[in-house]
Amino acid sequence: MGTDGSADRRTVTVNLSVYIAKREQQIDRFLEKCLSAPHGAERLHEAMRYSLFSGGKRIRPVLALAATDAVGGPLARTMPFACALEMIHTYSLIHDDLPAMDDDSLRRGKPSNHVVFGEALAILAGDALLTEAFRIMAEAAARAGSERGRAVQVLVELAIAAGALGMVAGQAADMEAEDRPTDLPTVELIHVRKTGALIRAAVRGGAILAGAPAGQLRRLTRYAEYLGLAFQITDDILDVEGTTARTGKLQGRDLVRHKATFPGVLGMPAAKARAHELLADMLRQLEPFGGKADALREIARFVVGRAIPI
Amino acid sequence: MGTDGSADRRTVTVNLSVYIAKREQQIDRFLEKCLSAPHGAERLHEAMRYSLFSGGKRIRPVLALAATDAVGGPLARTMPFACALEMIHTYSLIHDDLPAMDDDSLRRGKPSNHVVFGEALAILAGDALLTEAFRIMAEAAARAGSERGRAVQVLVELAIAAGALGMVAGQAADMEAEDRPTDLPTVELIHVRKTGALIRAAVRGGAILAGAPAGQLRRLTRYAEYLGLAFQITDDILDVEGTTARTGKLQGRDLVRHKATFPGVLGMPAAKARAHELLADMLRQLEPFGGKADALREIARFVVGRAIPI
Repeated sequence: MGTDGSADRRTVTVNLSVYIAKREQQIDRFLEKCLSAPHGAERLHEAMRYSLFSGGKRIRPVLALAATDAVGGPLARTMPFACALEMIHTYSLIHDDLPAMDDDSLRRGKPSNHVVFGEALAILAGDALLTEAFRIMAEAAARAGSERGRAVQVLVELAIAAGALGMVAGQAADMEAEDRPTDLPTVELIHVRKTGALIRAAVRGGAILAGAPAGQLRRLTRYAEYLGLAFQITDDILDVEGTTARTGKLQGRDLVRHKATFPGVLGMPAAKARAHELLADMLRQLEPFGGKADALREIARFVVGRAIPI
Repeated sequence: MGTDGSADRRTVTVNLSVYIAKREQQIDRFLEKCLSAPHGAERLHEAMRYSLFSGGKRIRPVLALAATDAVGGPLARTMPFACALEMIHTYSLIHDDLPAMDDDSLRRGKPSNHVVFGEALAILAGDALLTEAFRIMAEAAARAGSERGRAVQVLVELAIAAGALGMVAGQAADMEAEDRPTDLPTVELIHVRKTGALIRAAVRGGAILAGAPAGQLRRLTRYAEYLGLAFQITDDILDVEGTTARTGKLQGRDLVRHKATFPGVLGMPAAKARAHELLADMLRQLEPFGGKADALREIARFVVGRAIPI
């Protein structure tokens, strides 16, 4: 395996950057189209665009498109959903950064939305992005013809993942857990909701829109659940070991605020071992998909590999 | 007409309170059902419920149901939409009251959401209510079978009305207009978006779900547009002439903050005359509907009559 294996790895990694760069371009083009024509709400749109086009990795929309690729469906049908995911993710970052919430002045290496536009407009930009995400999904469902049932199912799953039992609940629980002793089940529950739910919805949505049969959907759902957890664990590791230059965030912030983190609860070596196990689990779920799941495989390696050697 | 007319008026007014009370009960029951089972996000749900069940007049959901009645459709199909409207309205009030926005400590005669739960949870409660509104609509569309097309159309219209070209844009424009000289077109545009868009969506949604033919839908849309404007004009009048006991808000707040208001731009007598004209226009649009539009008629009289004698 030795040299051959690492040569393979390098080739695939290059392909992944090409894959992601291509998908990112498609996503950005679609996002541009969705957000044109501010009609007198210029400042609000400027605030929405500032965070939407601030160099985010587009990991959720890329995941949705990669899941569609894994099932072998057309990408055009998944595109509105992919963009809705990015808008919901972006709204959550804008609101999370607010002084009343996490009070982060830096995001992706740039001043946070409220630092540039003020708190009021940042709150409204978040509200607008969330609402526009559902508008885009609803408009896509209206145009979906015989596929309307699937489009509506994905809309339901997205709303559940983002809402009062999903992402928002995770953020609320995260704040409540600050400055309190936390155990592993609590940390996992917080992150399943805060990060995991939207990642799960991204993969499932891309698969459902592509018409995945039940068995494929089950495997991709498990893949997504492992990925969400791996994403959060490696984020926590980076908060301790990363640098602001690498992460675009002030490091050690979670520690200072006594946030519930995996390294904090498990210890660093066990947290890293857990991330490794999750990578193996993900690759196992993808086996039956063959080459069509290469992008999903590489995303898994990227997410774990950005924090620890794999 | 004299005595007979006023006797009629009294009878219908009593009927309206009975109508509204009955619809309010149905709406509250449905909202209760939608919001059950917080599953570990108890404090968030408490914050959502606090504002959702704080004695709101339920005017938007009642309007949706009354529009369905005017067209002669079944109310059950409109109920999820009606509740989604109230959740979106409630989220907008919670966010509007935040210190960074209008900084109102009193709402419906009770402490505002952030005064009770803190700013962070108030932001999240608003986010969650907005998301849950779309969840309820999407779930209803998923169950709608052959009516799914209509349900999705209403979902699209609601998202447009609430989003970056609708309600949120209106709120952003309203803030920008503070402490600046404003003219009538600007004030109208702000309020068409901030208040009018959701009222329009409420009436249109109730009519579309009931299967209104194009002619009926056109008349009801005009009725809704006049009502939205009348609603804002009378709100502005109440802000000057009302008392905190009647409105549940601190009066004169708009004046103090130099908000763009109709009495401020038109003068009080012209603002009142405008409200009267709008009432006449609304009643004209409803004529062909006969007795089935009685609730819509009485809502129009109530909205105008709460601020000026009609």
